[in-house]
Amino acid sequence: MADSAPQLRVCLSPALVPHQRLDETTVVVIDILRATTSMCVALDHGVDHIVPVASIEACAALKAQGYLAAAERNGETVEGFEFGNSPYSFMRDLRGQRLAMTTTNGTQALHAARAAQQIVIGAFANITALCAWLQAQATPRVLLLCSGWKNNPNLEDTIFAGAVAERLQASHRLADDGAVMALTLYRAAQADPRKYLNRSSHFQRLIALGIQRDAKYCLRGDTHPVLPILVGERLVDARRVTAAPAGI
Amino acid sequence: MADSAPQLRVCLSPALVPHQRLDETTVVVIDILRATTSMCVALDHGVDHIVPVASIEACAALKAQGYLAAAERNGETVEGFEFGNSPYSFMRDLRGQRLAMTTTNGTQALHAARAAQQIVIGAFANITALCAWLQAQATPRVLLLCSGWKNNPNLEDTIFAGAVAERLQASHRLADDGAVMALTLYRAAQADPRKYLNRSSHFQRLIALGIQRDAKYCLRGDTHPVLPILVGERLVDARRVTAAPAGI
Repeated sequence: MADSAPQLRVCLSPALVPHQRLDETTVVVIDILRATTSMCVALDHGVDHIVPVASIEACAALKAQGYLAAAERNGETVEGFEFGNSPYSFMRDLRGQRLAMTTTNGTQALHAARAAQQIVIGAFANITALCAWLQAQATPRVLLLCSGWKNNPNLEDTIFAGAVAERLQASHRLADDGAVMALTLYRAAQADPRKYLNRSSHFQRLIALGIQRDAKYCLRGDTHPVLPILVGERLVDARRVTAAPAGI
Repeated sequence: MADSAPQLRVCLSPALVPHQRLDETTVVVIDILRATTSMCVALDHGVDHIVPVASIEACAALKAQGYLAAAERNGETVEGFEFGNSPYSFMRDLRGQRLAMTTTNGTQALHAARAAQQIVIGAFANITALCAWLQAQATPRVLLLCSGWKNNPNLEDTIFAGAVAERLQASHRLADDGAVMALTLYRAAQADPRKYLNRSSHFQRLIALGIQRDAKYCLRGDTHPVLPILVGERLVDARRVTAAPAGI
């Protein structure tokens, strides 16, 4: 791979974003269990846009303005909100609706990356659409940002980053040790991802909460081929917008 | 592994230490290329103690007090200092000498972990001595702290953490996703660590600086079976002290 090829880097935690270059960079925010999966589900079911917010208060304020409101902390729906973070809860006709969303990790990672040129959302649910879009872009740098669990790296986000690295190897240069690590972990998990991810602490957390069905759904590929992109404060499906603005 | 077994966690960057519990915890600081390797070499060659300092100024101040002084930034010896970070430079009779040391990553990681109950130093150079010591301790938690490169995770420190996780699996419970990741990476690299680490950005950096010999030496196992432990401001060989104090 020529040094002039676009760079692919992997950031294993939102707490490490301050040590990453974000200029001329497309950031892919990853929170497999379950925020970025659920965002793909909601946009694929017709939601006009999603406003990811960092706090429960900001989510409640948008709810008062007529937004559907999803709030999750530590795996559970916050009291007073109709949605938590389950992909299944967004599998209904949501055309024309607006959605506000706050989660333990994923929406925090989105906010950590705000200085990037472009921010999009990745999950197994949209992996093929995502990789095709990244390869069509001319961005010099792609940063795969794993949301982790409360700022610690986690297995499922890292393995997804490795799956993207595997697919982009032909067009992008793996430009940091994080990318090499993610690719190695993906290959180790590839034979039986669900068995490997049984060792993930968050996978175990969801099973303890009785939502193993969610966890399994989040590992399925290409269930919702949308391309959520942040435009201003809003996540919209890039397939529905003619051109994304250069800066946000 | 019973839940009551001591926990083994892996922290992939000093920047993630604020998200880790440090109470009742033994922290193993890891900077394979080359700080913690060189510390083992120096103590094995008779240095009385090492004072790891964060700044070049603090290192110069100790030099003025008669310390041997080692200062490295970005892989190179800082001007005005007799030692950099090469393990070979410490392979001479250093009995009775005191050593001050500051490096790009390793000494920074040591300072990040100061709140821990105990801090020791790990490298391939002392891996068997280290693992035996950790198994003899009753500490409820062991945290393997990878120094990384300027706060980003790196391959060589993570793989070493995985090698320790492999050896401690019988006595300790792998208690976070970082430990599972490190173990998987170690197993993937195990067949040919040097070939795998050719993909490490810092390995490449050292080769570019003409110090491939250093990098190779740092991957050799059990060359210097010391057990550097922090007592107050000083790293000493635990084999030479009768009992380590409970708090530092």
